[in-house]
Amino acid sequence: MTNTLTHLNLTHLNDSGAAAMVDVSAKPASSRLARAGALVHTTPEVLRLIEQALLKKGDVLATARIAGIMAAKKTSELIPLCHPLLLSKVSVDFQLLAAQGQIQIEASCLVSGSTGVEMEALTAASVAALTIYDMCKAVDKAMTISDIRLLEKTGGKSGHYVLEDQ
Amino acid sequence: MTNTLTHLNLTHLNDSGAAAMVDVSAKPASSRLARAGALVHTTPEVLRLIEQALLKKGDVLATARIAGIMAAKKTSELIPLCHPLLLSKVSVDFQLLAAQGQIQIEASCLVSGSTGVEMEALTAASVAALTIYDMCKAVDKAMTISDIRLLEKTGGKSGHYVLEDQ
Amino acid sequence: MTNTLTHLNLTHLNDSGAAAMVDVSAKPASSRLARAGALVHTTPEVLRLIEQALLKKGDVLATARIAGIMAAKKTSELIPLCHPLLLSKVSVDFQLLAAQGQIQIEASCLVSGSTGVEMEALTAASVAALTIYDMCKAVDKAMTISDIRLLEKTGGKSGHYVLEDQ
Amino acid sequence: MTNTLTHLNLTHLNDSGAAAMVDVSAKPASSRLARAGALVHTTPEVLRLIEQALLKKGDVLATARIAGIMAAKKTSELIPLCHPLLLSKVSVDFQLLAAQGQIQIEASCLVSGSTGVEMEALTAASVAALTIYDMCKAVDKAMTISDIRLLEKTGGKSGHYVLEDQ
Amino acid sequence: MTNTLTHLNLTHLNDSGAAAMVDVSAKPASSRLARAGALVHTTPEVLRLIEQALLKKGDVLATARIAGIMAAKKTSELIPLCHPLLLSKVSVDFQLLAAQGQIQIEASCLVSGSTGVEMEALTAASVAALTIYDMCKAVDKAMTISDIRLLEKTGGKSGHYVLEDQ
Amino acid sequence: MTNTLTHLNLTHLNDSGAAAMVDVSAKPASSRLARAGALVHTTPEVLRLIEQALLKKGDVLATARIAGIMAAKKTSELIPLCHPLLLSKVSVDFQLLAAQGQIQIEASCLVSGSTGVEMEALTAASVAALTIYDMCKAVDKAMTISDIRLLEKTGGKSGHYVLEDQ
Repeated sequence: MTNTLTHLNLTHLNDSGAAAMVDVSAKPASSRLARAGALVHTTPEVLRLIEQALLKKGDVLATARIAGIMAAKKTSELIPLCHPLLLSKVSVDFQLLAAQGQIQIEASCLVSGSTGVEMEALTAASVAALTIYDMCKAVDKAMTISDIRLLEKTGGKSGHYVLEDQ
Repeated sequence: MTNTLTHLNLTHLNDSGAAAMVDVSAKPASSRLARAGALVHTTPEVLRLIEQALLKKGDVLATARIAGIMAAKKTSELIPLCHPLLLSKVSVDFQLLAAQGQIQIEASCLVSGSTGVEMEALTAASVAALTIYDMCKAVDKAMTISDIRLLEKTGGKSGHYVLEDQ
Repeated sequence: MTNTLTHLNLTHLNDSGAAAMVDVSAKPASSRLARAGALVHTTPEVLRLIEQALLKKGDVLATARIAGIMAAKKTSELIPLCHPLLLSKVSVDFQLLAAQGQIQIEASCLVSGSTGVEMEALTAASVAALTIYDMCKAVDKAMTISDIRLLEKTGGKSGHYVLEDQ
Repeated sequence: MTNTLTHLNLTHLNDSGAAAMVDVSAKPASSRLARAGALVHTTPEVLRLIEQALLKKGDVLATARIAGIMAAKKTSELIPLCHPLLLSKVSVDFQLLAAQGQIQIEASCLVSGSTGVEMEALTAASVAALTIYDMCKAVDKAMTISDIRLLEKTGGKSGHYVLEDQ
Repeated sequence: MTNTLTHLNLTHLNDSGAAAMVDVSAKPASSRLARAGALVHTTPEVLRLIEQALLKKGDVLATARIAGIMAAKKTSELIPLCHPLLLSKVSVDFQLLAAQGQIQIEASCLVSGSTGVEMEALTAASVAALTIYDMCKAVDKAMTISDIRLLEKTGGKSGHYVLEDQ
Repeated sequence: MTNTLTHLNLTHLNDSGAAAMVDVSAKPASSRLARAGALVHTTPEVLRLIEQALLKKGDVLATARIAGIMAAKKTSELIPLCHPLLLSKVSVDFQLLAAQGQIQIEASCLVSGSTGVEMEALTAASVAALTIYDMCKAVDKAMTISDIRLLEKTGGKSGHYVLEDQ
């Protein structure tokens, strides 16, 4: 391994390699935001079905939105070493890419605290995607979810991060 | 839309388009299996860090494995219209693709029941991937998760499904 | 107390009055249904606001519906002496009584098991009502929820019960 | 709709009508209290049974009290758009109205935070009522729960609210 | 290590040592019971305080009983490799050993299923003990919990087990 | 009872003996730490099996560690009158006492808040112990857990507490 890794470390492992929730008590509380994305790949036909439902009551996306928001609040229950925190805002938005048969998901989380909210935004986006999968799987068994990733992050000592190619 | 869609429907929406947990009481209990995958994209350097930890106590993957297994049991809490069920087996396995800097995840679930376990396997794979993300994000902010998809499914009236290009 | 009460007992209290989950292992599994209702009292103006949102994306009722369905699955976590069970169907429906400024909620649960699902239907109706309250409280602090009650119950040794004056 | 509604809005819906947890990060933390009520309608006979148990170990009300307190802590898991918060006090009290065959429930919650605790108090009162229902339903199938409503609220920019006719 | 261990194995580890929920799908459902105990060590003075409260409303033990029962239902959420199951009965009982300043806890669980309920009974006893600890810690910081162990187990292929020296 | 008890009280019971979450809103937030222990009694043979697994992937202890950490975050869901809080650090460590066939567990929790974290540390230690029990019970039915107790506590008005005989 090169020198550049000598200062790297997997922050959740202690000296002997055992897992632990890292101590964040010395980190000052600050306002932090994270945006994360996910992409559901299905077919143009399934998108049309979802949209027709939208024209009626919009429940596929409404259900996925609620699932994503509720999942963000469960992040520290799901991800073993995540710190509990008091989210001050969660939103989940969808963009239907009709021609490609894709649904783009973007989740956004806000907190005033001492840890970032990347995992909350990523969890919201992932569970919203899984909910769309669940509601459409009867008509498309070959759906795939991809591009679960951080789009933007502000606050904390690591500064402003924006994914370049979005 | 073509004729082929006239017999399709989004099973979780009732006649007026409102969401509901569909009635599965008439479906006979049978043995059902599902395997699902996910792919974490990071760098060869991060993989080396994970492996070195593995040589000590292996905790990144051990933690992600436990997170995935516990998430499978929480599926019906996360996905609004999923039925609760009594999983009889859950396993989560990892393959480190060192050269590509990728970690391949495969989750497998088994149940004797009246609904399939795709969502449980997909949830296990997704949360295992998110846990790896959480434990490595301090050294790689650009990680991405992709290829969350069903690999195989047996049981139920829809028969045996295997993803072709795996 | 009159004679008619000598054969009555509060089934969840054991001989010394202590709480316990009663033994249902000897009860045969059968198909059981319960329907429960709740009534939210607000103003005709708030109903119009909800309906206008409906005309856009219908999210107040869609959110309350999902909340009710998910709450039904959490019943045994909320009500201390309720048995866990595998719901095979949950639905939550709304009727807007515009002139009265009321929203009528009806939740329906189905199970094949050895205990009834009254509590699941009542919990679904209650949490759906509380969710409507939460989403409308900024415009009406004086909302009230009433008429949380069992509408119908089938299955089990107590036979078919239908609330008379509905 | 009258002019008076032009400044009203359903705070949980964003511009396009989609649900989201509203941003409370700009609201200052302050001390906030809420009291909520619920009323269980049963018969004088059932009340006597509960009281006799009280004379022994009091478990119906003790169980309902614990259920209500624990439910208050679960509010943000149950109500999709509620913010998580750190309750600093929860209490649940009962008044047996023997002649009417009614049980009056009052739940009180306290927090130092940026959102009110109405929903926590209402959830505590509702789940306490449902727990009484569960423990008494074997002797009275016709129980009803009503009068779930906010009794008092202090803190936050909306000032002091007291229900008039209590 | 002696020969007698060659046929032993830690059932939750697969061939490579990784954790997994073991497959119980081939095990027939049968009626299974487990009783587990725990012992809280405090002082005779604290016991007197608890008893006096008992003479009023008995809430320390009533609260601990409810906490134990609810914890039994959460076992598969707490213990990573436990299978979810549908408990058909849970009870928690206490014996105050006044002279020794000890509280003996016994939890009993029943299920008709393919796995035993030891962990459910042990979890119920442990959480009941922790709840007593929580409610009494203001008056005794030196409390200790011991003797968390299986007292009896029936059902399953391993037959009837009774702890000898109880 | 002696005079020394006249100023004692069980803080979770209100004047009439009913349970309630005590009001901590007036307590200032401060940095608080708690360390708690537990002891699992099994046999030297089982310890060897665990260690051999350790030499491969270490999963018994890795699983128990994760279970303990996740349980600490669930404390206020398990212990009815515990306040929710935002843990800033949780760790769980093990010491194998080979000759005695014992595993010593130590859990450590940190918070900046207005209540102590004894219950979180005790819950982490207890659930870690139960997880070891679960994973080893197939080879030792006679395991016992003891010595669940507070080892050290700092912060809060009661000052520094250290268990003397550790």
